[in-house]
Amino acid sequence: MMKKEPIIGILTGSASDLGSAFKAAEVLREFDVPFEAGIASAHRTPEDVVNYASGARGRGIKVIIAMAGLSAALPGVVAAHTTLPVIGVPIASGPLSGADALLSVAQMPPGIPVASMGIDGAKNAAILALRIIALSDEELAHRLEAWSQKAADAVRASREKIENMPAIPPIAFN
Amino acid sequence: MMKKEPIIGILTGSASDLGSAFKAAEVLREFDVPFEAGIASAHRTPEDVVNYASGARGRGIKVIIAMAGLSAALPGVVAAHTTLPVIGVPIASGPLSGADALLSVAQMPPGIPVASMGIDGAKNAAILALRIIALSDEELAHRLEAWSQKAADAVRASREKIENMPAIPPIAFN
Amino acid sequence: MMKKEPIIGILTGSASDLGSAFKAAEVLREFDVPFEAGIASAHRTPEDVVNYASGARGRGIKVIIAMAGLSAALPGVVAAHTTLPVIGVPIASGPLSGADALLSVAQMPPGIPVASMGIDGAKNAAILALRIIALSDEELAHRLEAWSQKAADAVRASREKIENMPAIPPIAFN
Amino acid sequence: MMKKEPIIGILTGSASDLGSAFKAAEVLREFDVPFEAGIASAHRTPEDVVNYASGARGRGIKVIIAMAGLSAALPGVVAAHTTLPVIGVPIASGPLSGADALLSVAQMPPGIPVASMGIDGAKNAAILALRIIALSDEELAHRLEAWSQKAADAVRASREKIENMPAIPPIAFN
Amino acid sequence: MMKKEPIIGILTGSASDLGSAFKAAEVLREFDVPFEAGIASAHRTPEDVVNYASGARGRGIKVIIAMAGLSAALPGVVAAHTTLPVIGVPIASGPLSGADALLSVAQMPPGIPVASMGIDGAKNAAILALRIIALSDEELAHRLEAWSQKAADAVRASREKIENMPAIPPIAFN
Amino acid sequence: MMKKEPIIGILTGSASDLGSAFKAAEVLREFDVPFEAGIASAHRTPEDVVNYASGARGRGIKVIIAMAGLSAALPGVVAAHTTLPVIGVPIASGPLSGADALLSVAQMPPGIPVASMGIDGAKNAAILALRIIALSDEELAHRLEAWSQKAADAVRASREKIENMPAIPPIAFN
Amino acid sequence: MMKKEPIIGILTGSASDLGSAFKAAEVLREFDVPFEAGIASAHRTPEDVVNYASGARGRGIKVIIAMAGLSAALPGVVAAHTTLPVIGVPIASGPLSGADALLSVAQMPPGIPVASMGIDGAKNAAILALRIIALSDEELAHRLEAWSQKAADAVRASREKIENMPAIPPIAFN
Amino acid sequence: MMKKEPIIGILTGSASDLGSAFKAAEVLREFDVPFEAGIASAHRTPEDVVNYASGARGRGIKVIIAMAGLSAALPGVVAAHTTLPVIGVPIASGPLSGADALLSVAQMPPGIPVASMGIDGAKNAAILALRIIALSDEELAHRLEAWSQKAADAVRASREKIENMPAIPPIAFN
Repeated sequence: MMKKEPIIGILTGSASDLGSAFKAAEVLREFDVPFEAGIASAHRTPEDVVNYASGARGRGIKVIIAMAGLSAALPGVVAAHTTLPVIGVPIASGPLSGADALLSVAQMPPGIPVASMGIDGAKNAAILALRIIALSDEELAHRLEAWSQKAADAVRASREKIENMPAIPPIAFN
Repeated sequence: MMKKEPIIGILTGSASDLGSAFKAAEVLREFDVPFEAGIASAHRTPEDVVNYASGARGRGIKVIIAMAGLSAALPGVVAAHTTLPVIGVPIASGPLSGADALLSVAQMPPGIPVASMGIDGAKNAAILALRIIALSDEELAHRLEAWSQKAADAVRASREKIENMPAIPPIAFN
Repeated sequence: MMKKEPIIGILTGSASDLGSAFKAAEVLREFDVPFEAGIASAHRTPEDVVNYASGARGRGIKVIIAMAGLSAALPGVVAAHTTLPVIGVPIASGPLSGADALLSVAQMPPGIPVASMGIDGAKNAAILALRIIALSDEELAHRLEAWSQKAADAVRASREKIENMPAIPPIAFN
Repeated sequence: MMKKEPIIGILTGSASDLGSAFKAAEVLREFDVPFEAGIASAHRTPEDVVNYASGARGRGIKVIIAMAGLSAALPGVVAAHTTLPVIGVPIASGPLSGADALLSVAQMPPGIPVASMGIDGAKNAAILALRIIALSDEELAHRLEAWSQKAADAVRASREKIENMPAIPPIAFN
Repeated sequence: MMKKEPIIGILTGSASDLGSAFKAAEVLREFDVPFEAGIASAHRTPEDVVNYASGARGRGIKVIIAMAGLSAALPGVVAAHTTLPVIGVPIASGPLSGADALLSVAQMPPGIPVASMGIDGAKNAAILALRIIALSDEELAHRLEAWSQKAADAVRASREKIENMPAIPPIAFN
Repeated sequence: MMKKEPIIGILTGSASDLGSAFKAAEVLREFDVPFEAGIASAHRTPEDVVNYASGARGRGIKVIIAMAGLSAALPGVVAAHTTLPVIGVPIASGPLSGADALLSVAQMPPGIPVASMGIDGAKNAAILALRIIALSDEELAHRLEAWSQKAADAVRASREKIENMPAIPPIAFN
Repeated sequence: MMKKEPIIGILTGSASDLGSAFKAAEVLREFDVPFEAGIASAHRTPEDVVNYASGARGRGIKVIIAMAGLSAALPGVVAAHTTLPVIGVPIASGPLSGADALLSVAQMPPGIPVASMGIDGAKNAAILALRIIALSDEELAHRLEAWSQKAADAVRASREKIENMPAIPPIAFN
Repeated sequence: MMKKEPIIGILTGSASDLGSAFKAAEVLREFDVPFEAGIASAHRTPEDVVNYASGARGRGIKVIIAMAGLSAALPGVVAAHTTLPVIGVPIASGPLSGADALLSVAQMPPGIPVASMGIDGAKNAAILALRIIALSDEELAHRLEAWSQKAADAVRASREKIENMPAIPPIAFN
């Protein structure tokens, strides 16, 4: 279905993080933006990470999303081998619920930026990637705006859960 | 049943926080204080939040209770658009069990106060709202006092769990 | 100067927290709302705390602000002996920078609400107290609104720090 | 069975902490040291707490064990109303797993000591109480020593779990 | 000097965060990318924030960098009013050293992405903005690559501090 | 001056913790309770620790106070080699401000109780030791009560700081 | 099967940590390196710990792996009684998910090093022990290299999970 | 002076961590064990790190000590490119006092072990490296034992600080 060349790359540090990759992929497919996804570990297959990161711009990739748990070195290592914008997603694996991964992803040294999402923030990673892509894709920008509108509509629609309950008088928001 | 004009407003950032809203509503209904509840997100429907917050005093609302999880901006945004007292309830959603929400709700900058409850402290939010309302409602003040007495009685009644066990000699508290 | 009967009470757990009390007092004096302040410790002079809290409503107090550091029991003990709204200010004393006090003030059990401010949030405590008082004092409400306006103006005025620098093009906000 | 006058008092802040009280009681019964247990909340029945704490020494109590979760004020309030040694047990209730209770129990201001146990450390509270009682009860001291010996023996006995597995060569500890 | 229309906007929540804004500005000037900077508070001048964020795309802005401390709502509120990529910089103001701001900036709800930097990560915010701009500016991409090379060279040059010391044999890296 | 046999032993893990030992000693001297103090490290001089702990009861010691920073093993190792009550004082050395020491001292496994004080809580350690000693020393119990009274009086005396300021109306506590 | 003299010793603080010991043992068996395992508690059987640690070098042990939860004193006590390298594994038992154990294991005072693994990092402890052994066992070094290669291959093999899904275009890593 | 080929390598992520490198070097020089030191950043000069790590064993290095702050990826990246034992030292740079670095260094994924020291634990890193080297260097083992003895003696010598004070009766440890 998706024949166009990928412009977003999704990397996860291990197969156990694929659930998060799929969550991001779902958003990208909804917007019909071509992407590719793969598993590569900063610690177990570091050459694959370096090769992918350093070749990505040349192959037409615009944004790389990197997801990892625990001592999550993947996003930083990717960012060190490319000048593309890199989005890091700390994954909540292990006993510290992702607090370790959040610090590992966010607290990068000066010179090597990683755009950290919240813990398990795969969906937001995809949307941020789309916002970046939309800088040079007016139509995508419009679709993102419409999508935000839909998100607002969903919030408003959810209010009927209150309206259908007799004992909770609903706020009339307008 | 509740025909009087609402004087307390309950806002939750998303439908998934309605459980907390209901817990607060239960207390308010028990005291027969009219309220209204609604869903409005500081990030997805910010205009609704602003409209509600800035119009609330004019519509007769005395206290606004705002509940949100994660980076819980809702209480602060509400407090920024009203001079009514605003009570914030950090919700324990996500992998950090509400520690993120507690800091987001409590650590407000000088000038914009939010009365932070504990994590998932919806019940206390309602009681604080009632204490505020009771400043100009002597009878409600009496009912709150009686209610505290009932809470004390419930603690005392719970002692029979110990008294019914032969192996644990109960303390005679008076 | 302040002859009117106090309607706000400020308690600090020890003399070392008086700096925070003065910060709150400054705001209250600016609004010309009569208050009183005192030192009473939940652990060292508990009877004074209980006497003050339980007699406050009868003496005309509307809101109690309680400030304490470390294991900050003061706000909760005050709240347990009154049905007035109680505002707690966790103070950053000791090696944990007030993180201990914040949890002690905020994480109250159901039934005994304390309105927690941020760490060292004495100024916000005063403003919240004023917002509560303003529910029955239309003029104070107007002054609070004007005060918020002044705070906004101060933010805008601070922009000239940027405007006076040749190398940073200032945003034109309107 | 236990006819002797109680010399240890166990207080829990609510009925939901009774499980911890029973864990402590079990140890005390094993050593046949008379105790009493009760529920009293620093926030909901503060007078009961104060009455019990201030009267305990006069009634022959030697050590008070106080257990509470969240903003755990109970041990500190007890310690403020007696000169008996007070042992505090932070209970892991609520979303922060007892980290809030540990800080509330341990971080007491100078002058009011509470002997903090670890989170849910009811068993250790009982043993510490016994160690204190044993200062004037030579025989109890011997039984505590024997009990420690039994705990060491239990560790050693548990080694047969390894010895029975062919693939794990067991350490010969002597 | 900088006559071109700004394509990057820097917002700080208060004048006290201007140091961080200048750190980011320094990087942008080094790359000769036109920007603008201003102070606007999510809580004290929310309309200015909303106006700026919602008008930014129309005015030619490509990336917004938002910096704030404590309960740092600014980046999220900006992100809620634009479909541009928004970079958030948590500032280490207050007793919690920016841990509160990091959680407030990073832990955004699904649908509203903020690219969180590390605490006080103003420099990285600027570089990430440049990486995004460079997606459609080949020459800037080359300059960023050269800049990374210079950063690597600086690391290598710093090794002479070791080489000049007789007692520490330096590693010969190639 | 102090000729009586020591009944309290103070151990610090290193000479750098002597300041805390002196703080505790000051309190014990004020109450004229004989004590002894020494430096012994659970990691550097473990035999000294074991010898002291296991011989203490035989030599007439009633309570051991053990102070240590970082991974503070000292109190636990002492408690493992005696059946005396052991009080642990976590010291705020190192970059984590004593949070590491607090967890190391408080989170003891079942069977080996340590009475944890707050971070740098040397003074409270001494008072707790005195409360334990006072169980069999009626006169000391009275002096402790009087001392608490003096602490309360000091709080009350500190109120004159407020009373002497014209702009802060002091609370009349009785 | 394993007749050779053990060169690695595994100690766990209690039988409840045996699962972690087995995880480490599995790795050691895979590499056919002789080891021994046992249960000994720094607090309940301290002499066994001291005996084992101080005699280990003499008996041919090269590396000791020590595992414990909560206030995890075991690795430090072992390290204090040997000059062998000691690897500590903090175990995630108790309500703090091993954060307490990590700090207790890692934050050792100067002079007594413990090689801390991550929480529940038993597998890594075994591999580190093998890396140390391999310094004088060329063949083991080769097998470790091959094993790393296999780990890399496993990462690569896991990519077929993506390749088999039609909707996620897989990255071609070479 | 040091002509022998280096067998220990010290890497720091930036020149600002050289103080820690020197602290480790001091210990190694004291034991006359040849080493080399260099600056190489996992993010700014990743190829230097990879080259050094992958070539180290071949060049005779036995142990690599890697030091870094913030999101401290260096030790893990080194460990991923060698089968030598790697010791990681989290450095306390930045507002989180090294808590971020500790988690980044310790929480490694299974398969890639890093021996984490405590925060700023450069001295312990050197001693652990010596313990590893001493496995095949009997004389070094004896010197380490003597050194531990000296450390114990230093603790004992420090006791004279107490002995010289008249008011603190010193413990007689033997």
